[in-house]
Amino acid sequence: MISPLQDARLNYRPVPPAIFRNINNIEVSLGEQTSASSDSEALRDLFPQTFGQPIATFSLAEKQVDIHPLNVGVVLSGGQAPGGHNVIAGLFDALKTMNPDNVLYGFLNGPDGIIKNNTIKISEKFLAPYRNQGGFDMIGSSRTKIESPEQFEASKKAVTDLNLDGIVIIGGDDSNTNAAMLTEYFKSEGVATSVVGVPKTIDGDLKNEYIEASFGFDTACKVYSELVGNIARDSMSAKKYTFFIRLMGRSASHITLECALQTHPNVTIIGEEIAEKNSTLADITSEIVDVLCRRANAGKNYGVILVPEGLIEFIPEFRTLIDELNDILASTEDDIPNKISYVSRKMGPKALACFKTIPEEIQKQLLFDRDPHGNVQVSRIETEKLLIATVKKELAKRKKDGTFSGKFNAQSSFFGYEGRSGLPSNFDSTYCYSLGYTAATLVRSGLSGYMSCIRNLAKSSSEWEAMGIPITMMMDMEHRQGSSKPVIRKALVDLKGRIFESFKESRNSWAIDDTYRYPGPIQFFGDNAVTNISTISLGLESAQ
Amino acid sequence: MISPLQDARLNYRPVPPAIFRNINNIEVSLGEQTSASSDSEALRDLFPQTFGQPIATFSLAEKQVDIHPLNVGVVLSGGQAPGGHNVIAGLFDALKTMNPDNVLYGFLNGPDGIIKNNTIKISEKFLAPYRNQGGFDMIGSSRTKIESPEQFEASKKAVTDLNLDGIVIIGGDDSNTNAAMLTEYFKSEGVATSVVGVPKTIDGDLKNEYIEASFGFDTACKVYSELVGNIARDSMSAKKYTFFIRLMGRSASHITLECALQTHPNVTIIGEEIAEKNSTLADITSEIVDVLCRRANAGKNYGVILVPEGLIEFIPEFRTLIDELNDILASTEDDIPNKISYVSRKMGPKALACFKTIPEEIQKQLLFDRDPHGNVQVSRIETEKLLIATVKKELAKRKKDGTFSGKFNAQSSFFGYEGRSGLPSNFDSTYCYSLGYTAATLVRSGLSGYMSCIRNLAKSSSEWEAMGIPITMMMDMEHRQGSSKPVIRKALVDLKGRIFESFKESRNSWAIDDTYRYPGPIQFFGDNAVTNISTISLGLESAQ
Repeated sequence: MISPLQDARLNYRPVPPAIFRNINNIEVSLGEQTSASSDSEALRDLFPQTFGQPIATFSLAEKQVDIHPLNVGVVLSGGQAPGGHNVIAGLFDALKTMNPDNVLYGFLNGPDGIIKNNTIKISEKFLAPYRNQGGFDMIGSSRTKIESPEQFEASKKAVTDLNLDGIVIIGGDDSNTNAAMLTEYFKSEGVATSVVGVPKTIDGDLKNEYIEASFGFDTACKVYSELVGNIARDSMSAKKYTFFIRLMGRSASHITLECALQTHPNVTIIGEEIAEKNSTLADITSEIVDVLCRRANAGKNYGVILVPEGLIEFIPEFRTLIDELNDILASTEDDIPNKISYVSRKMGPKALACFKTIPEEIQKQLLFDRDPHGNVQVSRIETEKLLIATVKKELAKRKKDGTFSGKFNAQSSFFGYEGRSGLPSNFDSTYCYSLGYTAATLVRSGLSGYMSCIRNLAKSSSEWEAMGIPITMMMDMEHRQGSSKPVIRKALVDLKGRIFESFKESRNSWAIDDTYRYPGPIQFFGDNAVTNISTISLGLESAQ
Repeated sequence: MISPLQDARLNYRPVPPAIFRNINNIEVSLGEQTSASSDSEALRDLFPQTFGQPIATFSLAEKQVDIHPLNVGVVLSGGQAPGGHNVIAGLFDALKTMNPDNVLYGFLNGPDGIIKNNTIKISEKFLAPYRNQGGFDMIGSSRTKIESPEQFEASKKAVTDLNLDGIVIIGGDDSNTNAAMLTEYFKSEGVATSVVGVPKTIDGDLKNEYIEASFGFDTACKVYSELVGNIARDSMSAKKYTFFIRLMGRSASHITLECALQTHPNVTIIGEEIAEKNSTLADITSEIVDVLCRRANAGKNYGVILVPEGLIEFIPEFRTLIDELNDILASTEDDIPNKISYVSRKMGPKALACFKTIPEEIQKQLLFDRDPHGNVQVSRIETEKLLIATVKKELAKRKKDGTFSGKFNAQSSFFGYEGRSGLPSNFDSTYCYSLGYTAATLVRSGLSGYMSCIRNLAKSSSEWEAMGIPITMMMDMEHRQGSSKPVIRKALVDLKGRIFESFKESRNSWAIDDTYRYPGPIQFFGDNAVTNISTISLGLESAQ
């Protein structure tokens, strides 16, 4: 009882980079020793076995390389991203093309599956219904991290028991950092299993000089852009609502920026710019209200405003407030009466000033929705409603002043979960499939501590270049609260980069002129222009 | 700067019913006198000039019919529905094919444009960018009704000044009722302008023996089904959230029912069934909690629950509560202190019992979000959050009883505005285009008080049958609060019909087995199966 489109997608055949047509002739060349983006000394100390590994590039040899049978495991780690199933499909097809005796195990329900050695042997029959489909439900996922000595030991036991030549970890920055640590541990323990990471996250914040895009970003942005475009068209048709739309993306505003380039909303708030300008909630409110007043003067009492999920954490005064709240709440009973006035008395003046600007409903979200560690759940805060409340208040003030004479009717939306498990676009289907091929090639070459990498993504897929990048090369040390740890730093929106520049050039005209753009739903069939082009962000970054 | 898909859609050529290939040879045959679905006597009194008009069918004559030049006006009335622009495109192309001298005027910003005689003359150049595109922004829309004697007179003046042979009103049940009244008025005043209605509403509640579907329902359901399917896949991948999704559709639950058939959620609440069973909020909560408990026993702490926007109005105890609240609030200052306890003291025991089951946040929505007439704004109530609150409470109780030992993490969504102005599907593009052709033919034949009608919609579009149905035939009288008025009654979900039967047969297995279905985004290009099939509802109703 699958849908006609699910069915049609089962027959899609992604075209991986041309080199993979002769996968058994691929020879791996290793370049020079590498370093890290910073903190090389500290990282060398932490990764004595693996730091400095060279970049691995692929070329075709005249004769076949060694195709001894391989056992490989694969795991999905963290939140869903469209295309995860195709990484597994590419890995499977590559392995079976190399040698039909190769075996692929799927670890079930994320890293827990490694710790418990809970696997399923992947066959074509098992895999077939998931080809080019969304979700992570083929083998499941989880957010468990392999951190404790016991977990490391259990992982060693699992890969040894399964006699794995390689383990492929599909995950974001955290999971790939974890992959690097597992590599180091395996090497120090004499375990021969290769560890290969695959860059996954819809947020687009796993991106650097080598990784042009994480998979899933393309599809998720397209799902959201369709909806934002539809709402913009609705706004301009009915001419009576101002829509405040919050988009997923907590640590970075890449999704919001891409959707803005796709749809041309009237106001777009980019978290990184807020942080750089040291803006307050009042500043952001003013910025929006200024545009709404100008629009009202032009007879336009409607509009579209985009906000990134993580906005609050980019506002410096909110960071102070949240830090103080976390401290206060840690020593406060959950059900004390008059909690709002109780915590207000305990706050410093800066935090209190910020707290007072927030409507009561949001104050309650801050105080009552706490995570298992007792911390404020920033992702649960309905920033779009917070802004509606502050904008409404400011407009009322300006109405009194006589500087606003329009109408304000707001609607709010949050788009998140509907983008994480959508049917992967042709781009993500093919990119993921190719990442799977690349991972297989790295494992066969015995390389460990590498991330599967594809470059030239703005070109057609047969022209893409596959390679392996040592994970430690992308790392530096994060220093926080007196301790430091190795991380792949999340890529934030580069305020001097081409993408933001392009946005900055246009946003003033988008504010008042209604130049909304309507991307429409993802298309899988038809002309190249409507089916295979990736994000505007990727296009801008790849432009020479 | 339009998107590649907007551009590609401009080139789509809808294929209208075969008869329109020879539009100038179409002869109209009139059948027998008609009646109304009920209250014929009263309706005959109200519509002395127009009641009982015959059904108009089309056939091909040997020679061309009279093609004297025509002036026609068109207006968009009420909320957006995908395809509105194509009704205008079909009307325009039909008129220009009949006679290049024919003129089409668009009334601007809905019925206000008629009252103010505010028009634009539609040319191919003006129309071209809107072909097969979403939204109503080409000429705008509004919810104004032509009701007062002054408004009727202004309408007469406008159509007389413009020398209109016909006026085409694109709207829902209310707007078509209005069209019937305008027809009657024009006839009684000796105005020769034909009035023709076109059935529009995404809600699907303008449907009867003659009208198989209102336009926009197909696209809107497909937009929502994509999102519900994506969320279901996400739910099954992460296995940790229960999603409560509210879908647009206030007076009837057709959208929710269609989306359920498309995606197979674990629980679907259909308003009409709630009303028939006389269910309380506690009953609905129990129904959901029972399923969640059975799922938890099967190790499934996740799921998807669909709720229609208008649910609250289908719950009898809420109707009582809302009616009483409207009365109480009418005589209450908006800013009295302790409003909740104040109104609680004024309520009857039944309303109070219901009010007490509601979480405070929703109580406040009931008390503070009021429309310009001071009434509770039912559509603003976040029913999905209300249910999350009541379900949470009930699960906590069952946890104490020992009958629930699972986990419950809820997420909520509302999908509405993103479906009203989406790019119309091939079905809606073609259906609307054909409705425009039909309207042009009815106007040319001098028929007034008819609705443009297309039948056999489950077949391919060239086999569709175009005709005109007298609007009074679909009407009856609504008796409310001592007064009665003519209406086209909204079609509710037929609890004995095939669509609901099909849902009922499957919902038990959907509840526990994860048989989610993922429709994916609307496709415009490719195989017939993924591009041209309309809703499951239409298919079921058309099946012999």
